[in-house]
Amino acid sequence: MKERNPSGESPEKKAAGIAAADLVEEGMVVGLGTGSTTAYTIAELGRRVEEGLDIIAVVTSYQSEMLAIQAGITLTSLAEHPELDIAIDGADQIDAALNVIKGGGAAHTREKIVSMSAERFVVVADESKISEQLDHYVPLEVLPYAKEYVSKQIFNIGGSPELRLASRKDGPVISDNGNFIIDATLGLIENPVETSALISQITGIVEHGIFTNVDEVYIGKKNGSVEIMS
Amino acid sequence: MKERNPSGESPEKKAAGIAAADLVEEGMVVGLGTGSTTAYTIAELGRRVEEGLDIIAVVTSYQSEMLAIQAGITLTSLAEHPELDIAIDGADQIDAALNVIKGGGAAHTREKIVSMSAERFVVVADESKISEQLDHYVPLEVLPYAKEYVSKQIFNIGGSPELRLASRKDGPVISDNGNFIIDATLGLIENPVETSALISQITGIVEHGIFTNVDEVYIGKKNGSVEIMS
Repeated sequence: MKERNPSGESPEKKAAGIAAADLVEEGMVVGLGTGSTTAYTIAELGRRVEEGLDIIAVVTSYQSEMLAIQAGITLTSLAEHPELDIAIDGADQIDAALNVIKGGGAAHTREKIVSMSAERFVVVADESKISEQLDHYVPLEVLPYAKEYVSKQIFNIGGSPELRLASRKDGPVISDNGNFIIDATLGLIENPVETSALISQITGIVEHGIFTNVDEVYIGKKNGSVEIMS
Repeated sequence: MKERNPSGESPEKKAAGIAAADLVEEGMVVGLGTGSTTAYTIAELGRRVEEGLDIIAVVTSYQSEMLAIQAGITLTSLAEHPELDIAIDGADQIDAALNVIKGGGAAHTREKIVSMSAERFVVVADESKISEQLDHYVPLEVLPYAKEYVSKQIFNIGGSPELRLASRKDGPVISDNGNFIIDATLGLIENPVETSALISQITGIVEHGIFTNVDEVYIGKKNGSVEIMS
């Protein structure tokens, strides 16, 4: 099959994405994340399926659905297969304790449901995503009806909310679930588990981008090697 | 205007619904809840608007939107008026500490956003809704994608989830936000604040029906009197 090259060739992302595909074994049900690094995993899994690997997969977005179909991977749903053997996905920032921030692609809600449904959750990324502590803005999927209320709550906890605007449509980005994305700058997130619990309780937030359930991280280096953090 | 009688005349509901309308003063921005008791409040506010009361309102559902338009109440949105003076809404069960369970009408997500946006949140109900402690099932608005995962989490905390089926369409009820409703029987809810925090953190639940932000409850009695709990 054709090499996929979603956002310009990246040897680091490619190395991490392909290395993680090694974890997928015959007969597994696999959660396929969204984004440029995961796209390499999907392409590599498609190559292995063409060679005879028998797997089925659940997608987390229209993007990963399209890539998986192009790659020839048989799809299923969480309704049919609510328990996954493994989920592989990207991240926007990763700390030393394997907490991550996701949602740059606005797909973090389905990604979190899939990762929570998986026996093993593996993140793939290039080394630019590593940080001692989390300080990246946190993407929030928000009901359009609750935009003002949620923004006010983010101010109240000392944060700075920004409605994510689309670049190829007028107005705000609309998620695959039909909602808005508010990018909440919260400064240094000292305790990701506590911050996660705090913002989960804000009414109108469908899901936020802090993930505290990562088992392993595959980091692609500039020299093409892959470091595994666990 | 015509008397509205949404589900058979109920003197208790009517007494509570009308009494709460007294709290609405000239110039206020009012959140209008959903359900048979709130319908009496909306009808009464419409009567007062016809007599010259100047208010604007935010609705919580297609039902309350239709009733408010019929009643001649000028509507606004949370985007335009993010801070409300008062919200008036019904409830399915009310405990002695004014914690309530809502969501029988599948409108609890927008109802919660509105109630949280209001300076004062008043619940109207008949006395059958009063209980020493909460033990009613808790309606959960759930992303269709997360139905199996959420059901499993409810089992894991000792509860019993049931997908709410529609009676005038095939398959499940779809909320005004496009999601499923899972009614979660949790037994006696000893600590509503703790249970609320716990289920808020389950990925895939858009919002649950436990409200811990009620300021006052107007209870309509069989003899036509209204008791105020606060």
